Amino acid sequence: MFNRVAIIGLGLIGGSIGLALHAAKAAQQVVGYDLGKGISDRARKIGAIDQPYSSLADAVRGADLVILATPVGAMRALLQNIAPALSPGVVVTDVASTKAQVISWAEEFLPSSASFVGGHPMAGKEVSGVDAADASLFQNRIYCLTPTARTRPAAINKVTALVEALGGRVRFLEPLEHDGQVAGVSHLPFIASIALVDAVAQSGSWADASLLAADGFRDISRLAAGNPEMYRDICLTNGDAITRWLDEYIATLTQLRQRIAARDRNLSETFVKAQQTRQQWQTSQETSKNTR
Amino acid sequence: MFNRVAIIGLGLIGGSIGLALHAAKAAQQVVGYDLGKGISDRARKIGAIDQPYSSLADAVRGADLVILATPVGAMRALLQNIAPALSPGVVVTDVASTKAQVISWAEEFLPSSASFVGGHPMAGKEVSGVDAADASLFQNRIYCLTPTARTRPAAINKVTALVEALGGRVRFLEPLEHDGQVAGVSHLPFIASIALVDAVAQSGSWADASLLAADGFRDISRLAAGNPEMYRDICLTNGDAITRWLDEYIATLTQLRQRIAARDRNLSETFVKAQQTRQQWQTSQETSKNTR
Repeated sequence: MFNRVAIIGLGLIGGSIGLALHAAKAAQQVVGYDLGKGISDRARKIGAIDQPYSSLADAVRGADLVILATPVGAMRALLQNIAPALSPGVVVTDVASTKAQVISWAEEFLPSSASFVGGHPMAGKEVSGVDAADASLFQNRIYCLTPTARTRPAAINKVTALVEALGGRVRFLEPLEHDGQVAGVSHLPFIASIALVDAVAQSGSWADASLLAADGFRDISRLAAGNPEMYRDICLTNGDAITRWLDEYIATLTQLRQRIAARDRNLSETFVKAQQTRQQWQTSQETSKNTR
Repeated sequence: MFNRVAIIGLGLIGGSIGLALHAAKAAQQVVGYDLGKGISDRARKIGAIDQPYSSLADAVRGADLVILATPVGAMRALLQNIAPALSPGVVVTDVASTKAQVISWAEEFLPSSASFVGGHPMAGKEVSGVDAADASLFQNRIYCLTPTARTRPAAINKVTALVEALGGRVRFLEPLEHDGQVAGVSHLPFIASIALVDAVAQSGSWADASLLAADGFRDISRLAAGNPEMYRDICLTNGDAITRWLDEYIATLTQLRQRIAARDRNLSETFVKAQQTRQQWQTSQETSKNTR
């Protein structure tokens, strides 16, 4: 299906893509590059790649498919740096959390003989790194692809074939549509979690109050433990959508605040609605998991 | 230690108190009452109580310690209803999530021959109900007691002895101090979770966006699945403290929103601080767990 696939960035996602490509026998050769010392050797050892490279240019040279599997913060430099070494006709895709900004960098830096199709697999694990890589990570998970009006159909077909080889379910979205939706369900949640930890821990009573913090605080603050640089880079590349969602969130909180101040007994109706929404979402998640 | 203990409300907390009192051989007799059909018989079967009652007055009559183990929403009526049947010298305590309002009801309705000491164990489980009851639920967990200037020392000693029999760690707090602290670490979190689900699900894109919702949304929305009536009653009885925390939270979110809109690269410093706070809290939680 593919002759030579180059995976740039061999963490959980990059490593899992390599394992899944091998499991599906979808590529003649999978090569890889990672900035981290020893990571690409480790990726070869676990069978994620066939050949490690210590030079980014050597890794992408001759590849017909290049997969950029790094956080969004690395994408601009990566696109700039691979551009001179790409072979004509190559298809480049990525796995970053935000799409419109990455696509505009790809259009700015990649040669016209290369095609770019933005991608975002809805898959992850609590643990990261190549040692957590798993050939079934994408199995039956949604995998967003965000071609634009300028994307060549052949490139879309190639990346669709990649997602199918990984076992994922392709979902086509406009780049801005994708960014708006993930801003609500994925970026707003980590901002909400960080802001809560920040607000509560800034207070003079935190030393005492932290002793009373239990399961509720644990649940709401879990996302605040995530990678700060990755969160920052997501904010830098998806700021418009995130601020729109923050405006919605602040308006909802302000309205709840007024109703709590007014001792509104009908608050329970709003709480029931949120409970139902959450339960319906969870049920649909479990249904989709069971079909895997 | 106690002659006759009456537990009113035989859910997870009430049932666990009964089991722990038996395990510690701390009471001659433990009796119980629950509104729910068959619950008090079930509590006797699992060994949480020795004697079930179908009348609230009969349950508390003759008891030297009465434990109100219901959500805060039931407290006002409960205090009114038990008052005529209480024996002189009885000590009454509760386990509700908010304290100042419950104490003012106790002062309003209980006879002067009875003593009230507010309590709030920092213990729980994902599951509820008497069948989840566990004698070790309070082991090494903080158990807040909120006596006031008017509370008799003998009553404080009696409830302290109860907490020690349960294996909990007594923490004395002013009622308003308690309510302010739990509003931050326990009530603000569920409002934040509900508001996020509400804001995101109200949007026209929810049907599509919900398909992209993954681990981040799951973590942040977990509290929204909690009991709506209990949440409402907590808001009704702790509205002042909750609205103060909501003001802090909204101010923090508004500031983050401006920095995201301004593409502030230093956001990562704020995110690092929240990450550290969360990690420190988690470490202290685990340390306290390991000493159990």
